[in-house]
Amino acid sequence: MERPRRKIYLSMKTLPEAGRLWKERTAELRTAGETVPVPEALGRVTAEPVTARLSVPHYHGAAMDGFAVRAEATFSASDVHPLRLQLGRDAFPVDTGDPLPPETDAVIMVEHVTPVGDDAVEIRAAVFPWQHVRKVGEDIVAGELLLPQQHALRPADLGALLASGVAAVPVFARPKVWIQPTGTELVSPEKAPEAKPGQIVEFNGTVLSAMVRECGGDPLLQPVIPDDFASLLAELKRAVVSDADVILLNAGSSAGSEDYTAALVDELGEVLVHGVAMMPGKPVVLGLIEGKPVVGVPGYPVSAILAFEQFVRPLLFSLQGVPAPSFPQVDAVLGRKLASRLGLEEFVRVILGRVAGRLIAMPLQRGAGVITSLTRADGILQIPQELEGVDVGETVSVRLLRSPDDLDHTLIMIGSHDNTVDVLANELKRRDSRIHLSSSNVGSLGGIMAVRRMQTHLAGSHLLDTQTGEYNFSYIERYLSGVPVRLVQLARRRQGLLVRKGNPKGVRGIEDLVRPDVRFINRQTGSGTRILFDYRLQQLGIEPEAIQGYDWDEYTHMAVAVNVLSGRADCGMAIHAAARAMELDFIPVTEERYDLLIPESCWADPKIALVLEIIASPRFREMVEAMGGYDIRESGRIMGIWDGQRWMERIF
Amino acid sequence: MERPRRKIYLSMKTLPEAGRLWKERTAELRTAGETVPVPEALGRVTAEPVTARLSVPHYHGAAMDGFAVRAEATFSASDVHPLRLQLGRDAFPVDTGDPLPPETDAVIMVEHVTPVGDDAVEIRAAVFPWQHVRKVGEDIVAGELLLPQQHALRPADLGALLASGVAAVPVFARPKVWIQPTGTELVSPEKAPEAKPGQIVEFNGTVLSAMVRECGGDPLLQPVIPDDFASLLAELKRAVVSDADVILLNAGSSAGSEDYTAALVDELGEVLVHGVAMMPGKPVVLGLIEGKPVVGVPGYPVSAILAFEQFVRPLLFSLQGVPAPSFPQVDAVLGRKLASRLGLEEFVRVILGRVAGRLIAMPLQRGAGVITSLTRADGILQIPQELEGVDVGETVSVRLLRSPDDLDHTLIMIGSHDNTVDVLANELKRRDSRIHLSSSNVGSLGGIMAVRRMQTHLAGSHLLDTQTGEYNFSYIERYLSGVPVRLVQLARRRQGLLVRKGNPKGVRGIEDLVRPDVRFINRQTGSGTRILFDYRLQQLGIEPEAIQGYDWDEYTHMAVAVNVLSGRADCGMAIHAAARAMELDFIPVTEERYDLLIPESCWADPKIALVLEIIASPRFREMVEAMGGYDIRESGRIMGIWDGQRWMERIF
Repeated sequence: MERPRRKIYLSMKTLPEAGRLWKERTAELRTAGETVPVPEALGRVTAEPVTARLSVPHYHGAAMDGFAVRAEATFSASDVHPLRLQLGRDAFPVDTGDPLPPETDAVIMVEHVTPVGDDAVEIRAAVFPWQHVRKVGEDIVAGELLLPQQHALRPADLGALLASGVAAVPVFARPKVWIQPTGTELVSPEKAPEAKPGQIVEFNGTVLSAMVRECGGDPLLQPVIPDDFASLLAELKRAVVSDADVILLNAGSSAGSEDYTAALVDELGEVLVHGVAMMPGKPVVLGLIEGKPVVGVPGYPVSAILAFEQFVRPLLFSLQGVPAPSFPQVDAVLGRKLASRLGLEEFVRVILGRVAGRLIAMPLQRGAGVITSLTRADGILQIPQELEGVDVGETVSVRLLRSPDDLDHTLIMIGSHDNTVDVLANELKRRDSRIHLSSSNVGSLGGIMAVRRMQTHLAGSHLLDTQTGEYNFSYIERYLSGVPVRLVQLARRRQGLLVRKGNPKGVRGIEDLVRPDVRFINRQTGSGTRILFDYRLQQLGIEPEAIQGYDWDEYTHMAVAVNVLSGRADCGMAIHAAARAMELDFIPVTEERYDLLIPESCWADPKIALVLEIIASPRFREMVEAMGGYDIRESGRIMGIWDGQRWMERIF
Repeated sequence: MERPRRKIYLSMKTLPEAGRLWKERTAELRTAGETVPVPEALGRVTAEPVTARLSVPHYHGAAMDGFAVRAEATFSASDVHPLRLQLGRDAFPVDTGDPLPPETDAVIMVEHVTPVGDDAVEIRAAVFPWQHVRKVGEDIVAGELLLPQQHALRPADLGALLASGVAAVPVFARPKVWIQPTGTELVSPEKAPEAKPGQIVEFNGTVLSAMVRECGGDPLLQPVIPDDFASLLAELKRAVVSDADVILLNAGSSAGSEDYTAALVDELGEVLVHGVAMMPGKPVVLGLIEGKPVVGVPGYPVSAILAFEQFVRPLLFSLQGVPAPSFPQVDAVLGRKLASRLGLEEFVRVILGRVAGRLIAMPLQRGAGVITSLTRADGILQIPQELEGVDVGETVSVRLLRSPDDLDHTLIMIGSHDNTVDVLANELKRRDSRIHLSSSNVGSLGGIMAVRRMQTHLAGSHLLDTQTGEYNFSYIERYLSGVPVRLVQLARRRQGLLVRKGNPKGVRGIEDLVRPDVRFINRQTGSGTRILFDYRLQQLGIEPEAIQGYDWDEYTHMAVAVNVLSGRADCGMAIHAAARAMELDFIPVTEERYDLLIPESCWADPKIALVLEIIASPRFREMVEAMGGYDIRESGRIMGIWDGQRWMERIF
């Protein structure tokens, strides 16, 4: 039997230490210079100062439509003594851009002359030398410094270069980045549909390639090679002698026993850093082989992206002689307490939205393997290693992952999840491409708490009052004292038991969950579905302990459905739409009301108005009906108006 | 004779009116959708919502290196009663990412077991179900909405798509933009060195192509065609039936008599706007032909760029279903009064720098033909049509043309120009690529005034006191009461008369300037060179009126040199370096001191420290000496320390 070896970090560093050391050892490196035609030079960085070859303009030209004259010859003209100029001798018609005829040095605008017959004009004022003339070198003088070195070329720069006779420009070559995905378990993206358990779709190579492009580099993405020392060593040697400027080795898994990167770099060169006290991103390796930077990029996707941003991004810009642009930052109020380990620099993905005038940051999942924690995020909050965490309500600086304009267009929805929310998100985007719905699934009760803290525009809720059989009203009375809200029905929906196609275990209803051959998957405490399920058990007189799997819970309807589909569980409770989406059989249990809670302070927000408009639209209703299990006849109905103390209106 | 026709704007609009109308008429247009492989989709915009095809992970996998177990079987383990697990039966070694063996549901970290022989391990604590397991769908659940439509794809998005089995993604096609440069006078950039008077190098096509690329579009740059109605009409018809999404016609000159764009669009379709009350950019034409947007882009380069930004940029983003990112803005204090015409939206290019804690905006030249007003600019100040101008000292909002980080790295230098300043600018960039020297050439006296208003870090000055024969000291005493400064010698330099190679007019010195066959070119009032020249005339008893060209002036040494080189003038006064750069002959007149004035409040700025370090470096001195006409033995010497009232130190 082969035992996994425990990972030993050869030279663990803090993030600032690692950054400093890496910068020190790579600061002098530059890519080779090359000369490229100006039309292809957008975004490239000058490797040398560029001087103008020609003056611009390179001749004295008319700056107006009119007549070119010798200014001195017009000095006698006045209102009292108009001056007649003979065309072809004293005055010459010119258009803007035309060269001045010899001996002329000024232009009279066409509006300021009176034609006299076909061959003369009359003027009533003198003109000064060089009036309405674009003189040689007015814009650019031949020989002057046009652009300094280490200047990133913008569209106007290309124009200035061409105008002054510079057809090709010396620039730093785009850094060539060798990207080597490694891992016995990796399969290429095309083979994803046939991936077997243990096989992971290789997508880091594509993500890293895209990031290299964003830094002005050329990615050289290599085919996947297996995780054995000999193959890896051979490939690394090939990379070292290639014309690549930087080598990235991307491990298949971040800290598995097959992680050879540090040993490989140590074999061929120098390991500067092995392990950085950051999370995600810890298992990074920084080294040099024959003067060429080599980075062992962690295998988990979020780790890979963050490690790239910390170490590869600044390097790629520095290789082109420019500093990496800094990331845009905003201040926001933290919406949930975050613990963090001392000595560890932590990067937490957050959603951001402006609620009641304040920008709110809501942390997303922290797992390094969860790539959607990045794709769903609006920003990244960095908790410095000196802190043990950040408290709810503290102001934090957040790096933006979206344009700052987007923040005013972000709708925050915290609470229970329903599949119709995905439809709503997409319809909002379709109606107004700027609007972005950030949803955080923390269950119905979590949503009500977020409303209480003024941290959300919307909360989805389907909380059953087991005393009255009503939904949401009593919870609002209990938890939202002093917080005015409106309650709008999104839909009524069917809840039931999900079982595999054909119902192999023959489950007929909740009463069958006590059978020893039936494994159940539950929802988390505080979710509306859990409350509903517990209520039903109580009605049926079933003890929770009698149900196998009662203590295993999931956070969403879809996650329950996936557990049933994969055979981990035989049965779970969820909405009909989840059964439809996963092609599972559905045993109806009840119909419940799913409402949106909207704080009164957000009611006037045009985004909320659009939400209400969409909910009421025939298009939305059709799409929701097509998902199955919904009753949308009362969608958009205001179920209650709560002024913080009592119901101003309420549908009983 | 053909008379230039006066331009008539068919339907002139204000900028906000034109923007609104254009948006209204093009808002519904989208490019065709297409499906592209995910690795090529960076920056593209989704044309439809994208749902996950596979769950991620698609199997239950180990999240740690260790041993997979069935959690229930470990419940009895404790410190008092360690539990022995048989390998291959109760526990299975797994690495991170490995699938869980059948019937197991948790992973014990390798650190938490004690090996017992070769085939068993012992544990001292129970584990919970799903501990250290990445469950199916933990990141992405098959069928869920992965990305809404109209979402611009970032690197992490590509990863999420591939991970969930989406190999190709429906996106809006890049807008294809037909770019038609027109103008009889245009020559292609390669032919620039042979351009004759009246011929203009065609570079707008390259600038517009680059801007199209920055907006995610595909430029289709056409060969130049002449400005005649028939050719233009034929080309435009070809463009209309092509697969281009947008047509740009770029006139050779902005308002010449050959400007047919509006008439052409009117012939084939509808002119929405002809002329916009903006400057630069007024002669823009907006129209639609068979539903295809057509823009007549003005010919002057700055006009072309600004008109593109106002009308084409938003259109190209809108065609892809997303709003154009807004431009970054900063607040700055205006350093010079700006007049502006009521009813005209004016765009003024400025340099920006932080002086004594305030961001200062210094206007650059306003000519629409001056492309360097954009390449040299740090920002653009927009004066709304409602204002008649902006006063010095007012706070204005400036659109940034550089990264905001750059502003702290901008050194502002206002005053006299010297060729060594170009060398200094380049050396600064070479030493620290973030540093950018923005210089504004307004003459020595203008520089002293900018120091007085706390608007510059540095001022170049070579003001001769004709009473004492000394430089700069008495001017500081006169103009900088209450403003402490230090005076540092940059170089001593030779001033003299510039004449064409071989001195065809046989000029021997200033006394020859009174000859009727010698045409002089002067420098502007307030420049050190002008003061020096006037002083010499006075010494020689020569009346200014006796000199032909005394009243024609230029703002820089290099501009004087170009006038002599081009034969416009026979002779001008300038520094030796300008003669060398233009290969002119040089008749020495005198040697003068060129100093840098540095406000005491800027003295501690690390950028100033770097300036002083560079001036004192052997490399800088060598480069300056190679330019000719400089004496650098005392470069970097502090000539005086002025406390605002008196000299604390002063070298006599």
